[in-house]
Amino acid sequence: MKGFQIFRRASTAIRNRATPSKLLIVLTFGAAGGAFLAISDDSPFRSLTAGESGNDGGKKKKLVVLGTGWGGTTFLKNLKTSAYDVHVVSPHNYFTFTPLLPSVTNGTVEARSIVEPIRNIVRNKPYNVEFKEAECYRIDPVNKKVYCRSIQNLGHGENEFALDYDVLVIAMGARVNTFNTPGVEEHAHFLKEVDDAQKLRRSIIDCYERASLPTISEEEKKRIMHFVVVGGGPTGVEYAAELHDFASQDLASLYPSLKDYLKITLLEAGNHILPMFHKKVTDFANEKFQKDQIDVKTGSMVVKVSDKDISTKNRATGQIEAIPYGVVLWSTGIATRPVIAEFMEKIGQAGRRVMAIDEWLKVQGCDDVYALGDCASIDVGDFKEFVKDIYERYPQVRKYLEKNKLKNFEALLRNAQGDSQKKIDIEALKKALSEVDSQVSFLPPTAQVASQQGKYLAACFNKAGRCEKKPEGPFRFQENAGRYPFHPFSYKHSGQFAPLGGEQAAVQFPGDWVSIGHASQGLWYTVYASKLVTWRTKVLVVSDWFRRFTFGRDSSHL
Amino acid sequence: MKGFQIFRRASTAIRNRATPSKLLIVLTFGAAGGAFLAISDDSPFRSLTAGESGNDGGKKKKLVVLGTGWGGTTFLKNLKTSAYDVHVVSPHNYFTFTPLLPSVTNGTVEARSIVEPIRNIVRNKPYNVEFKEAECYRIDPVNKKVYCRSIQNLGHGENEFALDYDVLVIAMGARVNTFNTPGVEEHAHFLKEVDDAQKLRRSIIDCYERASLPTISEEEKKRIMHFVVVGGGPTGVEYAAELHDFASQDLASLYPSLKDYLKITLLEAGNHILPMFHKKVTDFANEKFQKDQIDVKTGSMVVKVSDKDISTKNRATGQIEAIPYGVVLWSTGIATRPVIAEFMEKIGQAGRRVMAIDEWLKVQGCDDVYALGDCASIDVGDFKEFVKDIYERYPQVRKYLEKNKLKNFEALLRNAQGDSQKKIDIEALKKALSEVDSQVSFLPPTAQVASQQGKYLAACFNKAGRCEKKPEGPFRFQENAGRYPFHPFSYKHSGQFAPLGGEQAAVQFPGDWVSIGHASQGLWYTVYASKLVTWRTKVLVVSDWFRRFTFGRDSSHL
Repeated sequence: MKGFQIFRRASTAIRNRATPSKLLIVLTFGAAGGAFLAISDDSPFRSLTAGESGNDGGKKKKLVVLGTGWGGTTFLKNLKTSAYDVHVVSPHNYFTFTPLLPSVTNGTVEARSIVEPIRNIVRNKPYNVEFKEAECYRIDPVNKKVYCRSIQNLGHGENEFALDYDVLVIAMGARVNTFNTPGVEEHAHFLKEVDDAQKLRRSIIDCYERASLPTISEEEKKRIMHFVVVGGGPTGVEYAAELHDFASQDLASLYPSLKDYLKITLLEAGNHILPMFHKKVTDFANEKFQKDQIDVKTGSMVVKVSDKDISTKNRATGQIEAIPYGVVLWSTGIATRPVIAEFMEKIGQAGRRVMAIDEWLKVQGCDDVYALGDCASIDVGDFKEFVKDIYERYPQVRKYLEKNKLKNFEALLRNAQGDSQKKIDIEALKKALSEVDSQVSFLPPTAQVASQQGKYLAACFNKAGRCEKKPEGPFRFQENAGRYPFHPFSYKHSGQFAPLGGEQAAVQFPGDWVSIGHASQGLWYTVYASKLVTWRTKVLVVSDWFRRFTFGRDSSHL
Repeated sequence: MKGFQIFRRASTAIRNRATPSKLLIVLTFGAAGGAFLAISDDSPFRSLTAGESGNDGGKKKKLVVLGTGWGGTTFLKNLKTSAYDVHVVSPHNYFTFTPLLPSVTNGTVEARSIVEPIRNIVRNKPYNVEFKEAECYRIDPVNKKVYCRSIQNLGHGENEFALDYDVLVIAMGARVNTFNTPGVEEHAHFLKEVDDAQKLRRSIIDCYERASLPTISEEEKKRIMHFVVVGGGPTGVEYAAELHDFASQDLASLYPSLKDYLKITLLEAGNHILPMFHKKVTDFANEKFQKDQIDVKTGSMVVKVSDKDISTKNRATGQIEAIPYGVVLWSTGIATRPVIAEFMEKIGQAGRRVMAIDEWLKVQGCDDVYALGDCASIDVGDFKEFVKDIYERYPQVRKYLEKNKLKNFEALLRNAQGDSQKKIDIEALKKALSEVDSQVSFLPPTAQVASQQGKYLAACFNKAGRCEKKPEGPFRFQENAGRYPFHPFSYKHSGQFAPLGGEQAAVQFPGDWVSIGHASQGLWYTVYASKLVTWRTKVLVVSDWFRRFTFGRDSSHL
């Protein structure tokens, strides 16, 4: 059948096109980013250039990537050198577009629409790649090995294996921070993975069905229909808003008898919800939630979660209250994974809260290991120590800076080389440094940061050979040591969204330019559609939005 | 924002339209059906007309419907009387379009696209309806009660409840028949519900990921990548074909190293696969499977399933062989659920294999209880008994029939009333009766039968009042007893599909007209799209097909 052959060929042609040109409008926000100074004195990419030998037929270096989240996936997507045999280890054989997880919990978007098999993403890359669906449980930096465990329970010694590495990229993300609150692990829902979202969705429908049974008392019905969100950050706020929309737009007409029992509460330990946003956004969100009858309780610290009650402590009065609930979502921030904590001990980072990496994303105190995303944080401690050290050991530097009113260290360096006569006072320098410091400290654990780091690191790997010969980075501090091979990582903040339900959203751009309302929600749709990793996920998510608009959200208990 | 308001209104308008006119081409097959004679002598719908009092303000009758499969849902969809308070009990709060389950297992169609919340289906009906997500575990026909258990584990006496009924409709379907083969319950997959399909899909991806681990031996890899389907009926054959397409079209390029390990085996105890189809279809399927390297083993009875081996007995040689496998799908037929078996004992149907209903779908030996779909079967035993009885007690009837060469019982009745002089011999009558008998015995446990029964029963309920006054059914056997209120149920077979993979299908229409190939697959797409229960599922499934055609099937481990 000729017609069928054409159909088949067309299908194959479409599917084999690796990166089709953008189907949707892509908005890019140009924005000011912080530029960091280079401090470390060893060459951070020493190991990379050696790997280039792969190009001329030598044995390729073994690059192991741990994790397929934003950091790991963006790194793999942008890696364009054939110098490595790449091994990817992750408990998920797919990448998840996490900003849409709250949408999955309520069926606005399908789970399968926001994931992409990692094998699909790395198909047709110049490097060899093998994926292993496993969890890394130990990193041995001395013998350069990672120890992994299959997520399937295989037994018979088939479960665990070790991988050697020449270069290691850690992009394992972080775990949920329960602040050791009793009962959270057992009873609360989280929202980090796709299956978290699916479980949460099922639990909500569970509650509706349970409350519809004839055996349930009035009091019990009230408890079951009380949904509590802990944490007033963007995820918690978005989830509360999405849940409200789901309940009022879709479930209310299917479960009319339960309409009056529904209650949504948002608990926040601090004084404001959305603390990282402009006051205008917080105020708007508060107002909208009041109108939507979402109960926002600030200054409310959760001290315990049991199977039916959540106990909160009022930070002002110290009063403890037990609130009956049906479902609780815990969304309060992140903490270091045990495997990373153990690794940090081994490399002399025992006391730290987060694993320290330098400005080139190399793990401090460990060769050939890079880290990015939520599992690591660029450390400026060294920088401050360094400056203090200079002032102590060379008081003349301080005086020199004061006297010459130099603008910054780069100017100082340029000045030392005699190509500038600009001036600065020491207070301005301090201020400049503290700004850098605060910006670095607040580099948020977001998809934006992780994916920019992944892209940056891949670019460094790609140009390692060229940059070794012709370095493009800043000057080293030692005299006549030349330049670093690369520019340090520099984060460009594009702005942040806070969807608030009812087709409204807040967006805050760099420079605190804020926009709130339906137009921002439209922008949200456009940006997220454009940011989706593959053409497939773009089309799927956009058609999910269309489906939701046309038919509402599904309430089947799947 | 005006634009937004319009958007919102449009969305609401689209979603509130209960049954939009058909979006897609609907094909209807007119076909010959069997017409049965009326035997039972009591009025099968005695209880229904009393319910009509609800129309004039009296207390409404309580109608309990068990099950939301094809039978129950079609009944609820077509019920158009306000005479009842309807209570629906089912462990699933949704209806599943089961013919597309094999497509869900391989991601050709999304699970959510083939389900529809039952609350959505019964919205805007003239009757009051309440849904309970629970499983009926006991039916008490004496006290007219059904005992139910929530599918959620609630404890504290909240788990179980009883419901009174005035009229009961049993549409609980059947369970999988394991023929008591050891290990099947524990190790095999089934394909009756949506979560079965999702589990099966995950298991296949599990196998691919497991076989990709470095710890797995060659032999183990072969075992893991061996997928076995037990049962050569339409479901088993379609699944084997779909799995082959998924593996060769999508997984082969993502897991290139596993391509040569893949093996699919289809085990059938009988001598042919697709035994209910014309020989042409069986031959074509065999040929296609041979080309696709799907190993078809007929005459192969499964005697045991362990966690890694499936043991088969060759029916010809008696030889027993243990075959290592990765995933096994068990799809060999159906059996009576325990709750139905217990109910059958209570109503004097203890010895039977399937619950007996009469020609009006009323359960034999039990008042006010109707049953339809896979859980019941129309019994013609009574009819044969009745004829035998007549011949014995009234030998003159036999002689009369022979002498007058009457065509059939209807003619006999008409003759008795003096309006016909047509003739028939007794052998023709016997032949006619045996044809009726064989047709009834072979009424297959399919969606087609169940949904026609649901529609028929709802129509009877709808016109109960009118037909009591002006009966439309056949004459009763007793003299001057008048007519039955309704025509008995008459099944109209529209034909049957057997998708064979590679965008090819076989279809067999009544009268054994057979068509095989790509055109039949096109017909399959058209018919199934048109048969989907709601507008929403139609659009979702069709867009899923489009997605699959464009992007392939997803292999994420969700």
